[in-house]
Amino acid sequence: MSKNKKPLILVVNDDGITAPGIKALIEVAEKIGEVVVVAPDSPQSGMGHAITLGKPLRLKENKLFEPIKAYECSGTPVDCVKIAVDKVLKRKPDLCISGVNHGSNSSINVIYSGTMSAAVEAALEGIPSIGFSLLDFSWEADFSHAKEYIEKIITQVLINGLAEDTLLNVNIPAKTEESLKGMKICRQAYAKWQEEFDERKDPHGRPYYWLTGKFVNKDKGEDTDEYALANNFVSVVPVKFDLTAHQGINHINQHWDFD
Amino acid sequence: MSKNKKPLILVVNDDGITAPGIKALIEVAEKIGEVVVVAPDSPQSGMGHAITLGKPLRLKENKLFEPIKAYECSGTPVDCVKIAVDKVLKRKPDLCISGVNHGSNSSINVIYSGTMSAAVEAALEGIPSIGFSLLDFSWEADFSHAKEYIEKIITQVLINGLAEDTLLNVNIPAKTEESLKGMKICRQAYAKWQEEFDERKDPHGRPYYWLTGKFVNKDKGEDTDEYALANNFVSVVPVKFDLTAHQGINHINQHWDFD
Repeated sequence: MSKNKKPLILVVNDDGITAPGIKALIEVAEKIGEVVVVAPDSPQSGMGHAITLGKPLRLKENKLFEPIKAYECSGTPVDCVKIAVDKVLKRKPDLCISGVNHGSNSSINVIYSGTMSAAVEAALEGIPSIGFSLLDFSWEADFSHAKEYIEKIITQVLINGLAEDTLLNVNIPAKTEESLKGMKICRQAYAKWQEEFDERKDPHGRPYYWLTGKFVNKDKGEDTDEYALANNFVSVVPVKFDLTAHQGINHINQHWDFD
Repeated sequence: MSKNKKPLILVVNDDGITAPGIKALIEVAEKIGEVVVVAPDSPQSGMGHAITLGKPLRLKENKLFEPIKAYECSGTPVDCVKIAVDKVLKRKPDLCISGVNHGSNSSINVIYSGTMSAAVEAALEGIPSIGFSLLDFSWEADFSHAKEYIEKIITQVLINGLAEDTLLNVNIPAKTEESLKGMKICRQAYAKWQEEFDERKDPHGRPYYWLTGKFVNKDKGEDTDEYALANNFVSVVPVKFDLTAHQGINHINQHWDFD
């Protein structure tokens, strides 16, 4: 990042360009740098790392945050990052921030989350990148207590950079009467969703199924994001996109009979 | 797995239930175990770990592979695994196999791939799980040379199990006149897609964009999946779903100013 110029910050999300969460993130980012927004034109929660292959994308300027340049895209959160880099931005941004998501992306949610997948895609492009999420699903969620932490974390990343091929997954407890206690750098808790499909019949008597589930966390570690959040800390998990289970390589070479 | 019973094998994919690749996988699996198929009713390539949140799913029996029980689902590959576990299967399967994908899922493709995300979802459920892909995109791809390796790998996994929270990403070179040279246990090559959107105008003069790209591999390691495949080996990468960059935790604790 040049010392004389404001940092260029790409803002994306998965709840769509009209979500209050992205507005909160832009309000913090515009104090720090030059902001460009490229966000989905409709909600894209749970889209994971999906990309659009079978149909073309639309990209349209949106005046919502003027004088900040903003574009809405018909694709997924990952598509938004790709088209921002290739078609919208004149140079590689100094930072990509994604969110603020309405709802938690802690633990295994990182893998289903469009917010986090957009941040992962930016990291793949070599852009320092952070996903932010608030533990409140509602459209009317209060982001006011989160802004101080978002600003601190962005500032630290711009000053110190991030370890190579690493991005951050930041989750922020919902606002309560108690103030946030600070930040904890954590690992992803080992937890999962146990699905419980809700089976119904349509007016023609044919079944259909709503995906619902229960979040099950058997990981009692005090170094996890779930533990930090339960204790009213902001959780910061460094995330990578090399999915290789490196120890697994030896395990297989030792145990398998190749012939 | 009970010693007296055939193993129960869940077969899924992302190219859809009518794809030749899933037929090839079923033909191998039915020699080894009791097979149940739950696959998307339409192509779902590039869907990553997307799940369906905003609308319900349909699930319908399909007679395509009789007497093997098969179901088509209106959701994503990950939805297929979830609904199979919750609504279709009477017990937890001994193995989930996904594919055979028409096209490579080596290197960073693991993150965009519906085939691999379905396998990851099964692993999350505690089911030993393997994704298979052939380096040939065409619908008429020849899977005949792949079957011997698919059978070997399934057999090794059923005998030896897999390291905890680990699944396999198996890629198989396209058929050529040269025979495959064997299998290599590898790490994910550090490579990425460099996007090049193809901008066009619709009949009303408005722009639209097709996502295209160039696969860029600067990783010259001889222990990677790309290296194995380029040398006509089947690549086997152990994959995990803990995305924590564990070394990154220290990096941040050392460098950040929290106050």
